[in-house]
Amino acid sequence: MSTNPLLIIAASEIDSNLYYATRFLAPDAFVYLETAGESVLLMSDLEMDRAKAQARVDTVLSYSAYEERAKVRLGERPRLAQVVHQLLSDRGIKAFDVPSNFPIEYGDAFRGLGYTIHVRPDPLFPARVLKRPDEVEAISAAQRAVEEAVAAAMQTLRDADIKDGMLYHGGAVLTSERIKQLINVKLMERDCVAQHTIVACGVDACDPHNQGSGPLYANQPIIFDVFPQSSQSRYFADMSRTVVRGRASDGMKRLYDAVLEGQEWGVTQVRAGVDGKTIHEGICERFAAKGFETGVKDGRMQGFFHGTGHGVGLDIHEAPRVSRVNHILQAGEVVTVEPGLYYPAIGAARIEDMVLVTADGGVNLTRFPKQLEL
Amino acid sequence: MSTNPLLIIAASEIDSNLYYATRFLAPDAFVYLETAGESVLLMSDLEMDRAKAQARVDTVLSYSAYEERAKVRLGERPRLAQVVHQLLSDRGIKAFDVPSNFPIEYGDAFRGLGYTIHVRPDPLFPARVLKRPDEVEAISAAQRAVEEAVAAAMQTLRDADIKDGMLYHGGAVLTSERIKQLINVKLMERDCVAQHTIVACGVDACDPHNQGSGPLYANQPIIFDVFPQSSQSRYFADMSRTVVRGRASDGMKRLYDAVLEGQEWGVTQVRAGVDGKTIHEGICERFAAKGFETGVKDGRMQGFFHGTGHGVGLDIHEAPRVSRVNHILQAGEVVTVEPGLYYPAIGAARIEDMVLVTADGGVNLTRFPKQLEL
Repeated sequence: MSTNPLLIIAASEIDSNLYYATRFLAPDAFVYLETAGESVLLMSDLEMDRAKAQARVDTVLSYSAYEERAKVRLGERPRLAQVVHQLLSDRGIKAFDVPSNFPIEYGDAFRGLGYTIHVRPDPLFPARVLKRPDEVEAISAAQRAVEEAVAAAMQTLRDADIKDGMLYHGGAVLTSERIKQLINVKLMERDCVAQHTIVACGVDACDPHNQGSGPLYANQPIIFDVFPQSSQSRYFADMSRTVVRGRASDGMKRLYDAVLEGQEWGVTQVRAGVDGKTIHEGICERFAAKGFETGVKDGRMQGFFHGTGHGVGLDIHEAPRVSRVNHILQAGEVVTVEPGLYYPAIGAARIEDMVLVTADGGVNLTRFPKQLEL
Repeated sequence: MSTNPLLIIAASEIDSNLYYATRFLAPDAFVYLETAGESVLLMSDLEMDRAKAQARVDTVLSYSAYEERAKVRLGERPRLAQVVHQLLSDRGIKAFDVPSNFPIEYGDAFRGLGYTIHVRPDPLFPARVLKRPDEVEAISAAQRAVEEAVAAAMQTLRDADIKDGMLYHGGAVLTSERIKQLINVKLMERDCVAQHTIVACGVDACDPHNQGSGPLYANQPIIFDVFPQSSQSRYFADMSRTVVRGRASDGMKRLYDAVLEGQEWGVTQVRAGVDGKTIHEGICERFAAKGFETGVKDGRMQGFFHGTGHGVGLDIHEAPRVSRVNHILQAGEVVTVEPGLYYPAIGAARIEDMVLVTADGGVNLTRFPKQLEL
């Protein structure tokens, strides 16, 4: 563990580590310095009041005051690194750590000023991987909103009429766009911001990140993948379900049953001390044993060609991964378990729950039912 | 203009330059290489199909195929820089440019492999600053959604009853939270994602980035600042208005009139070839001439202590700035003009329009009325 000071320069709106360190949300970049004895922000005049009131740091300093001092020293308007240099000099700092995503422009500027920079490996804050009870609560609260929104969407599918293989609701063709909007609006009513919601039908569903578009069809799989961020807590939730409105083909039923069995087996394997790779490879083997092979076929990837899961928190995808890379699960991690199978000739399914890792096993944070046919 | 190849490694979801270059949106980092003759993506198996269908690049290559080659060469699982090294070697590239926010971790890794890296200054793509007609159209479309949502919010304020200085609607106290939710939901119904919407009343409004909370009061200023991103086009819009439900004090009226006069004067000054600094300083002088001074008073910044405006596009705050820094406006830029005055003892106002710079002057993209008292 490095005991160097840590310097972050980023916008906490998009840099979740900076938000984690300060609990202060700002759209423009600001300066954070953490030493053994003190955490310091260098803030623009615009953000001073808010930072003093909200940021969980020891000291909030005025960027413009340091800029003025640097300007006097240099005789010209200083660049950001020169302003921060003033702060670092005051504290006798000559070497510091930065996150792996620290901008190269600033890195080069500080090295040019004689500083020694050490890049801390990810995860920058190892404690972030282990969720406290209040963090698990925030994730669960966002997940309750997801479940309400997806339940409303499922009800709309159930209420739809089937004509010539297409779904109609309220006198109009039911589209992916309408259902996504219904989900996103329901989530916004709960102060959860959903982006890139997936409601993908048929061949669209065979591409795991295709968000879906156009009419929804009866008797074809529809994959839902919904992962909003709470605008209050800033924590994400993440859930996938696969349904067929009408009747699924026998092939689709077999595919779904394989995914369901693999997913539920995966959830039972979650426990502190277990290697995530073992879970991922176990699911792969179960799929292969049922004849669901993975590889390039007809010029595209088919089968199960993504990881089993990922951490969820202040980022939608964060450490750890449950994948072909070794990772020993630790109590307090929240990971998704979301295997899928994708074959354009048969159909596609993905089922995803969020699971809290404990010493005694996994605690499933997801309550939504798993039912193929509506 | 550097003719080096350009390398970007980022998630286009949060890196708007990468989205601008590829028009491909992905939540996880991917590799983009631009040479004089070719633009290339190195994509995970998960994103291959979607990238081939959607990305505006010449070539989409499989990350896992290059990873496999690097693995054979190294005899162990390669790190990302080693995989990209394989791609660069194939093309005989020994030096390349990167954006200013290129992660230091990768920069150090490539330098360790013998590459010469040049950091391109911002804006990375100068053309991004100059909006094409389709980009102006996308910004305007998002702005129409903003105006609909804010109109609904204003109507709710008009419909509210005033009791003991507080606003009531539908039998309950009208709060900042309710109005923000109303706006955000209306915007989501138009596929616009609003975050950090400001509805700040009274003393909250005196802190320009305070989003507001709690009851809304009659006879006090309420600042609205609404800046969603279209989930279809990815372009932002941005508008601020200030209103009082009931009667504004004489001091508040004078303050509002000064902001309105300064803002409208600022809009008339927008024209290609004009220095943004001249506009900003002109507004500052007009405020000072009316007795509205800027500086620290009672331990906090008061007056006009932010820039006059900023570019709007794929980022909510992008180049150029209209501020105390010199910038000659160019035809095609879209900038906000949003002066404000903030005095806890009197009140606060900010008025913001988006203006397209042309050779003949500014074209105001904002249509919403400016009216203090509702």
